[in-house]
Amino acid sequence: MPRPPNPEVRSRLIEKGAEIIHRLGFNGCGVQDITAAAGVPKGSFYNYFESKDAFAAAILDEYWRAIESNYVSILEDDFVSPLKRVERHFSELIEYHERQKFTFGCLIGNLALELAAQSSIARSKLKALLRTWTAALAKCLSAASEAGELPLAREPQDLAATLIEAFEGAVMVAKVEQSGRALRRFGTVALPRLLA
Amino acid sequence: MPRPPNPEVRSRLIEKGAEIIHRLGFNGCGVQDITAAAGVPKGSFYNYFESKDAFAAAILDEYWRAIESNYVSILEDDFVSPLKRVERHFSELIEYHERQKFTFGCLIGNLALELAAQSSIARSKLKALLRTWTAALAKCLSAASEAGELPLAREPQDLAATLIEAFEGAVMVAKVEQSGRALRRFGTVALPRLLA
Repeated sequence: MPRPPNPEVRSRLIEKGAEIIHRLGFNGCGVQDITAAAGVPKGSFYNYFESKDAFAAAILDEYWRAIESNYVSILEDDFVSPLKRVERHFSELIEYHERQKFTFGCLIGNLALELAAQSSIARSKLKALLRTWTAALAKCLSAASEAGELPLAREPQDLAATLIEAFEGAVMVAKVEQSGRALRRFGTVALPRLLA
Repeated sequence: MPRPPNPEVRSRLIEKGAEIIHRLGFNGCGVQDITAAAGVPKGSFYNYFESKDAFAAAILDEYWRAIESNYVSILEDDFVSPLKRVERHFSELIEYHERQKFTFGCLIGNLALELAAQSSIARSKLKALLRTWTAALAKCLSAASEAGELPLAREPQDLAATLIEAFEGAVMVAKVEQSGRALRRFGTVALPRLLA
């Protein structure tokens, strides 16, 4: 008889699995690597997750929760002017990638390119997270326009999506170069020109 | 005694392998899938390639040759003004992704995020290709500045790298959305604002 699911085991699988998939890629590691990292028997994985694809969606949720509370929340900090919030949102994300030595990339970007063509569960999750991120950034850009910090003609939704795309592309190049050059360039070229 | 290598077999392995890896990812398929697609025995793979990593570098070279002759060459077309060449370079790349229904992404971007942290052979190759692409675009942007089509103050190298990063990010989002929206936005938002 299967033992009742243990939320602590589920959390550990997600935490360790996110780490390992962020480093090795989704297809670069197997369920066994994930359960070994979490210190649980291989068979127990499927007591918690229907499939490895469903697990990808779960680790994306977990990754997003961390991004949201550490970086997206900056966009809602009413003590700071909206434009400053946008700049800080990205500069703190750049510091996060610097702490990783620019080596692992963004889990959303990594899984977007690795899984979008193969896993509809992962693709839906990625689409939803990108939509949420874009909406949060667009809201702050709208506030910047209302505060007179941005030309009113800028369509905040398109501008937000463009900034995220430029940022994800810079994270990609930083990963290839193992250097912060591309991300510094995002801050000195892409961000000011797109916001001008 | 191993048979002498057959250049036709090598080409077929690269052609079929590039297709399959572009669709499934590097770790999403094995050497056996590649040899089966090329219709050659599994064991023969290693007569042509030292490792699967070395094969990744070979398919990137092949992909780049196609990109170069079909899209990068546009940047050198002296019959067209430099700025128009830049716009056409990207609009034709967008059409290429449209023909793929935005599903597979750019092989350079895909392997950048999948392999840069794991394979130094792939990472070096990706770095070199990005450098070549950036240099070709920067040269055309310089010509645009000299022709008075771009403000002289723009640093062509940084601008070229930023455009490529924004484009790769848009290809990523297009792959997640399976739609051309992000790439159209690259053409209507990122490109004109970065070139303004």
